[in-house]
Amino acid sequence: MLNFDFYAPTRIVFGRDSHKQTGALLKPHTKKLLLHYGGGSVKKNGVYDAVAASLKEAAVPYVELGGVVPNPRLSLVRQGVELARKEGVDLILAVGGGSVIDSAKAIALGVYREDSVWDVYEGHLPIDKALKVATVLTIPAAGSEMSGATVITNEEKQMKLGYGSPLLRPLISVMNPELFFSLPKNQIANGVADMMSHIFERYFTNTNQSELTDGLCETTLRTIMKNALLVYEDPRNYDAWCQVGFGGTVAHNDLLGLGRAQDWGCHGMEHELSAIYDVAHGAGLAVLTPAWMKYVYKTNINMFVQFAVKVMGVDGSFREPEAIVLAGIEKLSLFFKAIGLPSSLTEMGIEEKNFEIMAKKATSVAYGRDEIPLGGLKKLRWQDVVEIYRIAK
Amino acid sequence: MLNFDFYAPTRIVFGRDSHKQTGALLKPHTKKLLLHYGGGSVKKNGVYDAVAASLKEAAVPYVELGGVVPNPRLSLVRQGVELARKEGVDLILAVGGGSVIDSAKAIALGVYREDSVWDVYEGHLPIDKALKVATVLTIPAAGSEMSGATVITNEEKQMKLGYGSPLLRPLISVMNPELFFSLPKNQIANGVADMMSHIFERYFTNTNQSELTDGLCETTLRTIMKNALLVYEDPRNYDAWCQVGFGGTVAHNDLLGLGRAQDWGCHGMEHELSAIYDVAHGAGLAVLTPAWMKYVYKTNINMFVQFAVKVMGVDGSFREPEAIVLAGIEKLSLFFKAIGLPSSLTEMGIEEKNFEIMAKKATSVAYGRDEIPLGGLKKLRWQDVVEIYRIAK
Repeated sequence: MLNFDFYAPTRIVFGRDSHKQTGALLKPHTKKLLLHYGGGSVKKNGVYDAVAASLKEAAVPYVELGGVVPNPRLSLVRQGVELARKEGVDLILAVGGGSVIDSAKAIALGVYREDSVWDVYEGHLPIDKALKVATVLTIPAAGSEMSGATVITNEEKQMKLGYGSPLLRPLISVMNPELFFSLPKNQIANGVADMMSHIFERYFTNTNQSELTDGLCETTLRTIMKNALLVYEDPRNYDAWCQVGFGGTVAHNDLLGLGRAQDWGCHGMEHELSAIYDVAHGAGLAVLTPAWMKYVYKTNINMFVQFAVKVMGVDGSFREPEAIVLAGIEKLSLFFKAIGLPSSLTEMGIEEKNFEIMAKKATSVAYGRDEIPLGGLKKLRWQDVVEIYRIAK
Repeated sequence: MLNFDFYAPTRIVFGRDSHKQTGALLKPHTKKLLLHYGGGSVKKNGVYDAVAASLKEAAVPYVELGGVVPNPRLSLVRQGVELARKEGVDLILAVGGGSVIDSAKAIALGVYREDSVWDVYEGHLPIDKALKVATVLTIPAAGSEMSGATVITNEEKQMKLGYGSPLLRPLISVMNPELFFSLPKNQIANGVADMMSHIFERYFTNTNQSELTDGLCETTLRTIMKNALLVYEDPRNYDAWCQVGFGGTVAHNDLLGLGRAQDWGCHGMEHELSAIYDVAHGAGLAVLTPAWMKYVYKTNINMFVQFAVKVMGVDGSFREPEAIVLAGIEKLSLFFKAIGLPSSLTEMGIEEKNFEIMAKKATSVAYGRDEIPLGGLKKLRWQDVVEIYRIAK
């Protein structure tokens, strides 16, 4: 096990009707906040009204900025920064899914920057302060409600980049699984693939002696997969949503990756799909992950046998490890298919002609810089990434 | 799953040599601290010197108070409160195990009280402020390094009472598993029994639809038990200590109990043993837990089948659930025996003549108050507690 430094101070207020407490929960922490949200769904399903009512009831002054889209855009972040400065807000309240929360975090850090927000993302610049962020989660997926991570898309540059800082962990996140009842099935599935990938990126490692986090990863994955089938079948299954929803939080609050070298290769490869094609992040991950597994498993076959047996429930002779691994990958692909996710890049409209440029962007060589290989379990150079895209074709 | 409110903001700095960073870690948070510790062991094994040196190196002013004993005493807490007030410290740094940390928390809350510290414990009085607490953990067991809980013994009244508040969660806890190398085997075993009990108290529940936390409990228990055998055999096994040590933190930071009704019957029954006989908390729990299981399993036999199969690895026919449960309890008893823990109250010198008074104290009737039954899975009146003590005899 490697040394680690863990700090996850987000307060999680979870359960039925919890979103109606938002105003009372935030009152002690803000003089004026920016209410940030996406498109129409929070207005249609009543969440916007309920949160706004709770802010009014608690006498919390606020201004608002809607319009966040999936793969949240830098342009809206810039508007948010201007508005937050002009209005002197001290907290950004994101009501939405990962895109809204990530956009809120970008605004929160941008308010204090004299340079551009994008410079921080592109240059991985350290930040020393940020506005407070709070969230009311409406789509379980990104885990952004308890993480310090944010991903923003620069639409002009066709670049999607992540950034992280402990200062960006939300102060309070409210999670009422009832709010997930109205999610369309494709959003449910994309969210499940995203949270599973957050665990995979931490789980697949060459670090030995990490049994505790191995086990935490495995049980969280099993629980999410089992209950994902239930909510996909019946999106009003509250108890199953509890497991999937809070599972998505646990998946990405860093606990599951403590003391382990992590991977993040699939996320790096997927961001390039979303940057050019604007496809759903979860769908891209569902296509790339099995392809990545097929390409890398020989690097650490015992790790993949463990995955196949302990996560995917593969039975078979340990004397034929490769057969076990391949059966595990096949079961994972079938799971993604069962919740309606695509099985190939072609199916998503992603063309082979872009494989090389995406691979070169993913590894930074496209920007005339030194290559930064992706991944941890196996270092992936741009040629490896092209191969994985081909397997996923 | 029940609604919940989770807030565990303690920063954990984990790994080799981490205790040497104590001064640098605390410098931004304190102007003057109280260094609190126990008996001779931290002086003998060099931990005291290393921590003191790091405080000096970082120019952190401090005063000190040693002498904490297992089942930490109210009398020393009172001294600590006086000293902390006189010296104007703003943080209590506990260097030790759960007893030292619990004593530090009692001082931290006591500094702001005009009434006595004991009143807070006995009356479960709310607190609205406390000094900051930080820890350098030297005995993994109590989980106090990331919890808001504290247990203090009033030696005059022969009472041992717990108290909890989010304000008592340590700010920073430093855990270097190398510091556990010099622990005597009985302390290793007591610690393991204590951390396992923290999980059992959360795991055994009548709340259904809590699969995620079920699984987190089960894997943490399995990992602790497996690695406990390794560190008991070889107390210098760093990697096994990583699993046991951080397992003990995860066991008690509340994550594993979220959204579930909890039990805490065994802790309640054990506190009475320690209050009169001053026995080790972990040893008492190791004796009482299997007895409690035998007394209550019929209340929720499916929960105990799950325990036997998923935690204890019992194989057998699910059509004979009782046989599976009893085999699971037997395996647990054998595990405790394998790490040198006692199997009966008699072996610990606890006499049947005190069963009734201990049971009446545990349920409050001894104090002329209305009975407060123990437990959650099954409510235990004082007569039930006597029966459990008898099974454990």
